[in-house]
Amino acid sequence: MHKILSQIESPADLNGLSSDQLEQLADEIRDVLCSLVATRTAHFASNLGVVELSIALHRTFDFSRDRLIWDTGHQIYPHKLLTGRYDEFGTIRTAGGLMGYPNPAESEYDLFVTGHAGSSVSTMLGMRSGDDLQAEKDRHAVAVIGDGAFPSGIVYEALNNAGGMNANLLVILNDNKMSICPRVGGVADYFDRLRMNPFYTGVKSEVLKILNHVPLLGDPTERLLAQCKEAVKAGLHGGMLFEELGFSYIGPIDGHNIALLRKYLEMVKTLPGPVLLHVVTEKGHGYQPAAADPVFFHTPPAFIDDNGTVVPKKSGGAKAFTNYARDAIAAEMRKSDKVTVLTAAMCQGTKMEPVRDEFPHRFFDVGICESHAVAFAAGQAKTGLRPIVNIYSTFLQRSFDQIFQEVALQDLPVVFTMDRAGLTAADGPTHHGAYDIGYMRLFPNMIVMAPGDAEEVGEMLAFSLEQDHPAAIRYPKTNAETVERQRTPIQLGKAETLATGGDGTIVCYGAQLADAQRAVEQLKSEGLHVGLINARFCKPIDRETIVGAVKNSPFVVTVEEGALMTGFGSAVLEACAEEGVDASRVKRLGIPDTFIDHGDREERLAEISLTTEGIAQTCRDMAAKTSAIHGGDDSMTAGL
Amino acid sequence: MHKILSQIESPADLNGLSSDQLEQLADEIRDVLCSLVATRTAHFASNLGVVELSIALHRTFDFSRDRLIWDTGHQIYPHKLLTGRYDEFGTIRTAGGLMGYPNPAESEYDLFVTGHAGSSVSTMLGMRSGDDLQAEKDRHAVAVIGDGAFPSGIVYEALNNAGGMNANLLVILNDNKMSICPRVGGVADYFDRLRMNPFYTGVKSEVLKILNHVPLLGDPTERLLAQCKEAVKAGLHGGMLFEELGFSYIGPIDGHNIALLRKYLEMVKTLPGPVLLHVVTEKGHGYQPAAADPVFFHTPPAFIDDNGTVVPKKSGGAKAFTNYARDAIAAEMRKSDKVTVLTAAMCQGTKMEPVRDEFPHRFFDVGICESHAVAFAAGQAKTGLRPIVNIYSTFLQRSFDQIFQEVALQDLPVVFTMDRAGLTAADGPTHHGAYDIGYMRLFPNMIVMAPGDAEEVGEMLAFSLEQDHPAAIRYPKTNAETVERQRTPIQLGKAETLATGGDGTIVCYGAQLADAQRAVEQLKSEGLHVGLINARFCKPIDRETIVGAVKNSPFVVTVEEGALMTGFGSAVLEACAEEGVDASRVKRLGIPDTFIDHGDREERLAEISLTTEGIAQTCRDMAAKTSAIHGGDDSMTAGL
Repeated sequence: MHKILSQIESPADLNGLSSDQLEQLADEIRDVLCSLVATRTAHFASNLGVVELSIALHRTFDFSRDRLIWDTGHQIYPHKLLTGRYDEFGTIRTAGGLMGYPNPAESEYDLFVTGHAGSSVSTMLGMRSGDDLQAEKDRHAVAVIGDGAFPSGIVYEALNNAGGMNANLLVILNDNKMSICPRVGGVADYFDRLRMNPFYTGVKSEVLKILNHVPLLGDPTERLLAQCKEAVKAGLHGGMLFEELGFSYIGPIDGHNIALLRKYLEMVKTLPGPVLLHVVTEKGHGYQPAAADPVFFHTPPAFIDDNGTVVPKKSGGAKAFTNYARDAIAAEMRKSDKVTVLTAAMCQGTKMEPVRDEFPHRFFDVGICESHAVAFAAGQAKTGLRPIVNIYSTFLQRSFDQIFQEVALQDLPVVFTMDRAGLTAADGPTHHGAYDIGYMRLFPNMIVMAPGDAEEVGEMLAFSLEQDHPAAIRYPKTNAETVERQRTPIQLGKAETLATGGDGTIVCYGAQLADAQRAVEQLKSEGLHVGLINARFCKPIDRETIVGAVKNSPFVVTVEEGALMTGFGSAVLEACAEEGVDASRVKRLGIPDTFIDHGDREERLAEISLTTEGIAQTCRDMAAKTSAIHGGDDSMTAGL
Repeated sequence: MHKILSQIESPADLNGLSSDQLEQLADEIRDVLCSLVATRTAHFASNLGVVELSIALHRTFDFSRDRLIWDTGHQIYPHKLLTGRYDEFGTIRTAGGLMGYPNPAESEYDLFVTGHAGSSVSTMLGMRSGDDLQAEKDRHAVAVIGDGAFPSGIVYEALNNAGGMNANLLVILNDNKMSICPRVGGVADYFDRLRMNPFYTGVKSEVLKILNHVPLLGDPTERLLAQCKEAVKAGLHGGMLFEELGFSYIGPIDGHNIALLRKYLEMVKTLPGPVLLHVVTEKGHGYQPAAADPVFFHTPPAFIDDNGTVVPKKSGGAKAFTNYARDAIAAEMRKSDKVTVLTAAMCQGTKMEPVRDEFPHRFFDVGICESHAVAFAAGQAKTGLRPIVNIYSTFLQRSFDQIFQEVALQDLPVVFTMDRAGLTAADGPTHHGAYDIGYMRLFPNMIVMAPGDAEEVGEMLAFSLEQDHPAAIRYPKTNAETVERQRTPIQLGKAETLATGGDGTIVCYGAQLADAQRAVEQLKSEGLHVGLINARFCKPIDRETIVGAVKNSPFVVTVEEGALMTGFGSAVLEACAEEGVDASRVKRLGIPDTFIDHGDREERLAEISLTTEGIAQTCRDMAAKTSAIHGGDDSMTAGL
């Protein structure tokens, strides 16, 4: 079926192929991508867009020696197919299978595990520098970066540094006019103008020819005239933003013409100094529905392409935490016109399109620049608004310094709704939200929370907007359950006791509350009576309830879907030590000190006991252990 | 003495002054700055550079209502003098006195506490947005930002967003050709070219006049010709980098001419959309030695200006941790040509100038862009080099996401030497290095260390460079002592026992080891026998030694100059819980959960018991408490 692709064992095999065969190869790659997406959720439109670019790059360079980084990395599928991973490709984004992002463990052609946008130019410049210092100047250095990643500040930091160093570095701007969501900002407008310029539309070369024949005069006006000439050339040429930074700007060129791409890549390969090659691609190219709706087809749910009809897989009808958060944000925005919401190119992932449409003037998508988003929110809060920063946990860490300086230090009431806080299945370690509990509770003034069930998302948001301090609310990427009980209102620093039991206590921080409740029921049926506390707050932590439980229960199991190191359980231990309470019978469940691979979320959670059965078994183990060691005695009398 | 300045109670008082009086006011402000610097270390050259700009801004705008942020904030002294703080000015940078940075608690004219560079445009854009949404469109929004802060990615993120929003925002580029150290990168070269352009040198306006009379034709070539004309104008105009982002660029103009500044500020005040006004100033202007050596005079040690002769205050001859680190880095670079060192405009603060001069090709100052610095280092490490990232603790947090993705996730051997880890005296909360223990130990693969004394700085660096993993070494801004004892070599995850004692144990992480040893001696003379452990590693932590001490000692006092929340003591508690050891008699000393004001470092340390006497008293208290409660019994038998 894939006559050519199936024979490609390494990119060297491209060298023997004719132009026609390369075109056919592109078709075969597209076929593989379409077949994959019919079976599971995967990055799609962005990969369709770089098929020709991937082929042209591997045909022109030798990346067994030259250096190549695909920024962010979700557009790496054609590259994987061209670098010996065709046979395994069907395993992508499944447990034990290929990663959906670059992975050096899979192939020498993948240099860095990535997933967060913008760092490719920096790492490639570092590699350029390293190769230069080690007398490997002949290794070419290429970073491919999408226009969506361009607003990210680190890109500019790296371009600035590369320009200053005059490093031999090729940056390919893959301009598909999209971030994950439609692109915003001055640079986006600028790229639009570049695409309109005469060079791209075909008339420029003639003008440049004429200009090159204008003689330079020897008198004092020479300098000014020369400047005029250069100015005309530069203005026609476009790319001044890059030229000003010290780059040679070339383009824009058609990114779906393999022959043209090869011609330009051969040309820039030998150009000295930093070069930016502007390539225009179409997200979803070659598959009409994806080209027509690249936002939906960024990571579409698996669908059956039945005679060209797109049938997105129906979700089970259950409502995710993300939806509850979105609905709660919309509700608060209806209640008060002081409430704004900010995101960073995640309007699709956080399902915020309806909010954007309902409140166009209070919805701010700043593009992939989380640092700016948080400082911008702080500015809004300073004027009396109540901004909600709605960003994935793993990406919000990019604004660590702004959370510190612009928000916590000023004690401004910015609310962080941290989506994807916890394990995120198929994307892997760059997308898990593992660290936010630690990095949020680090800062003075911050209120740090996690809803125990669906309803608490909205309750905590409403509560946060009444506080005169910054607050953070975390929730995972999963369906939200309602935990039945006598509900109690959210109060600052107050936990909620759902069940009492003389044999031990579970203290749950966040969305495992439903599992914990089921575990309690299960254990009860086995004769083990375990209490259940919904912690709600990591900071300020409820010392009376939680330290009290540690003091009075034979054991305590803390549950959190976050890194154990510095996490919620660690906060419990700190509180116990400060109160002089023995916490040796506290068992902390959470994400261990290792990077968690991609794979099915439920399986991964089971591996670290963050399931009904995992929590129940941990309680059984602790009950056995504590009764064996202590025989039920409670000699600790200090504290509280 | 300061006839005019002493009468300025608020900026409104500037309105009655003549041009000559404004000039005299500038002289008086300079006199205050010179007098201050003769008495204590303070930011100097940068403040001398913005005297006229400060006067012109307050004369043109009404910042009781309009919005003004000075980026980074160390150039705020003239602003403080003009906003009613002349009488208190002598208290600046002393405990209880004025802050050396903006501080809303001091004055309504200071909007944000700052200190970290680059966020002013973001926060000001946020305020612009907030004012617009609340029908306060008449409030002008002004951010003043130095060229040194410009390489910082968040500046570009904000410019991009402002351009896209077409916000009414005035950004003043205060171009003094300097970061704290001489400036680097493509943008720096670009600013140099802007200063060379005909507009600044005076011929441009004539050319523009002629161009404006070129008629536009009505035929199909019109568009191309119009583009040529615009291109010439733009090329002559300069500022294309900003124009491409959607800003109107104006300048450069002389930043020491009050009349000229007022003229331009009045003009840009009413321009719609985002405007960048490029002002050229001289760091140290008006005081010849400072203008001649602005690096030394950035924050000069107090000196006596004796008849124009500069006499820097001699330091006591003691050698700081910073010096030991610098010397160790140089030694390692001499040993291996694989070792490189990177900093982010901190070559002076980290005393790296000799290293830069000795190894110009292996020393990289990337400017104020820590995110890029870390990703760049990761790229170097990938090629086999051994980069050392030499950045202050508080600024390194700006690369949290790169430490995560580019370093820890790839498990690359990048070494972080974190200077200023701990309290930093006169600068205040933005400069304390409080959070690095927590944010470094969060990440898998990271080795996290702190030297107990002077010698261990070099020993730990040598050790780190032998590891195949990332490693972090923290040390405070203070003189380093040598702790006399039988020295033991650094081994991964191994603590060092300096003394044993049956009454309790001190576990010290970092530079308080000398104090702790003195405390042990003092307590011994009082009959209290306390052991002493030099922890060395926070991660991996030495469970055998440290958890063993918790298990076997009547009490343990942990000592760290970092945030208690998530810090070293917290790591000890985690290890104890995992080993099933009662840690209720562990007392953790460190930085509490609050922002610490500026002031004398020793006083601040005494307030949180991080001194010889503080540690000793904590031991006495714990001894009294534990003997009262437990009567010396040791009923805990679980674990290890």
